Amino acid sequence: MAGFEITPWDVTGKVDYDKLVSEFGISKLNDKILDRVKKITGELHPMLRRGIFFAHRDFEWILNEYEKGNKFFLYTGCGPSGPLHLGHVGTWLFTKWLQDKFDVALYFQFTDDEKFWFKDKSFEEIQRWTEDNMLDVAALGFDPEKTHFLVDTRHANLLYPIAVKFAKKITFSTVKASFGMTNEDNIGKIFYTSMQAAPAVIPSVLKGEDVPCLIPLGVDQDPHFRVARDVYPKLGYYKPAILHSMFWPALKGPEGKMSSSDESSAIFLSDDEKTVEKKIKKYAFSGGKDTIEEHRRLGGNPDIDVCFQYLKFMFEEDDEELAKIEEEYRSGKMLTSELKDIAIGKINAFLKEHRKKRAKINKKILERDWLWQE
Amino acid sequence: MAGFEITPWDVTGKVDYDKLVSEFGISKLNDKILDRVKKITGELHPMLRRGIFFAHRDFEWILNEYEKGNKFFLYTGCGPSGPLHLGHVGTWLFTKWLQDKFDVALYFQFTDDEKFWFKDKSFEEIQRWTEDNMLDVAALGFDPEKTHFLVDTRHANLLYPIAVKFAKKITFSTVKASFGMTNEDNIGKIFYTSMQAAPAVIPSVLKGEDVPCLIPLGVDQDPHFRVARDVYPKLGYYKPAILHSMFWPALKGPEGKMSSSDESSAIFLSDDEKTVEKKIKKYAFSGGKDTIEEHRRLGGNPDIDVCFQYLKFMFEEDDEELAKIEEEYRSGKMLTSELKDIAIGKINAFLKEHRKKRAKINKKILERDWLWQE
Repeated sequence: MAGFEITPWDVTGKVDYDKLVSEFGISKLNDKILDRVKKITGELHPMLRRGIFFAHRDFEWILNEYEKGNKFFLYTGCGPSGPLHLGHVGTWLFTKWLQDKFDVALYFQFTDDEKFWFKDKSFEEIQRWTEDNMLDVAALGFDPEKTHFLVDTRHANLLYPIAVKFAKKITFSTVKASFGMTNEDNIGKIFYTSMQAAPAVIPSVLKGEDVPCLIPLGVDQDPHFRVARDVYPKLGYYKPAILHSMFWPALKGPEGKMSSSDESSAIFLSDDEKTVEKKIKKYAFSGGKDTIEEHRRLGGNPDIDVCFQYLKFMFEEDDEELAKIEEEYRSGKMLTSELKDIAIGKINAFLKEHRKKRAKINKKILERDWLWQE
Repeated sequence: MAGFEITPWDVTGKVDYDKLVSEFGISKLNDKILDRVKKITGELHPMLRRGIFFAHRDFEWILNEYEKGNKFFLYTGCGPSGPLHLGHVGTWLFTKWLQDKFDVALYFQFTDDEKFWFKDKSFEEIQRWTEDNMLDVAALGFDPEKTHFLVDTRHANLLYPIAVKFAKKITFSTVKASFGMTNEDNIGKIFYTSMQAAPAVIPSVLKGEDVPCLIPLGVDQDPHFRVARDVYPKLGYYKPAILHSMFWPALKGPEGKMSSSDESSAIFLSDDEKTVEKKIKKYAFSGGKDTIEEHRRLGGNPDIDVCFQYLKFMFEEDDEELAKIEEEYRSGKMLTSELKDIAIGKINAFLKEHRKKRAKINKKILERDWLWQE
């Protein structure tokens, strides 16, 4: 793919989403689909209104089934290898919105096996991050009665027998072509995609009848399901539907994505107020001009300004307010420093609230079987 | 390897065990080692006296540790894809003898994932064979207080997190070279060897201290441990020791081995008296001459006679009696039909007893957690 490259583990270059839609064979979300959602949910989530969730597979089928009274369930996940950042949270807050509006169950997978295989970190370190990340995810407020946490190595009695069935239908050739694996990759990496395929059929396995599945994810995770979606029908299951999110812009600019392993690429949930302020002021890629005089005269470019993008992705839910900021920044009336201050204030308010919620999470969720009775 | 080829899934050609010892880099069992065993056990098992268990890795280390008071545990297993045959039972009866004489624990693995990945059978069919095979294995009389059954997909909470650690240290290149895998093999087959490595460290994982492991196995299973033995020390564990058995001769002759999937290659534990008689009379490869006259004059060849080999491998424990049969057959005094009758009688007596024991096995062992409290 010219100009940019995407695997579930790495994104390089500036992503051209139109090109990606055709390369991946996914469909853009259009007004007709969004209107159908609005009819059910009463309002559209900002990430839908603003095209942050921009594409899908089989989402119309999910709506058809829902309208017939056949409820879907949600499945998303987290690769625990470091502190969570804002890019993670965006997708999950959207997932929570879906859970609330459609009143559905959520299976949330922590892929500790994956991160152990792909990162140069010990098993114990990955386990510590798994527990750390679980507390953050729990603090986002998913419905505890309807949310199941799965940790790959801790719920293997449930996941592994399902993964085993996917693994039989996927060859190394396919994994090589889809993920760019080589002969020198470890056999865990090669096997892994079958563990990511598994949660999409858990309710079907448990109920003994097929339950539609909707997976909100960052578009970099799509290749797993491109491979697995061919397999689901062979095992007698529905193909899961998918909603694809754009990448959150990395702090330092429009190329690449936020990464848990690059401290200056992202704002972490664990960053305190001073750190957020420093990171935004020091690293946040700006759409402003070099001098105040020039900025006043020519205006800034919100389309590439990371602070504006963060407001758009998550922190300014009011469309009118966002439009006002955009207009003022584009006209030169608002300076980069002013825009940064708005972002710092919004982000710190969110993180403060998050820290409070996280502190209240019952540590019981770290126990093996929380919310999950096999 | 000229003349014969061995992988854990297939054996072709007539095995040259001396060549195999040097190709595999294993060591022959010698009198010095056998004398040490005898000092502990009081007698030698016929399979040791007769060189059926003919080679080892690190078995002297196991004896050293045992003499220091550091007990090992046993690990062996079964790939459940069809009815069990006499070749399986030989290794396990020897394992039972080791358990009794050394008074040690045994972990017995049923590799249902492996068989599902390697055989053209449904998951459900493999599960049925798993339960069928478990009843047979239990009927062999292992000490129930000291024996743990592991089924890969049912004890995945225990096995998978360990396998995950092995998988990180094994590349596709290694698996390709060791097992002859290709790019068109499914990713389960590629991953599988890490599941077979795992049980050898379970007591160490549970106790938090290193426990020596001894694995009695058919020599075709050695490649798994050749790969994994490099990994154990990297994960902080002892390399397991191994005792290697020759292949039971297939019913139809000295090339290849008995196979659950070839009805006429083996005598199954489920074969009734008539079937055993018919199979031996019809298929059992004979070392006799073409006519009685010629046989009386030139004598038979017990070295290639399958019935004589079965007596030697398992069914005639008395060395003097075996020597007498050998001498009479070699001299021509004993006819093939007489030798076959001896074998039929011994095998049917064993199977009759086995069926009785199997019928008494408490079906509780088929439950998920029998003998295993994680």
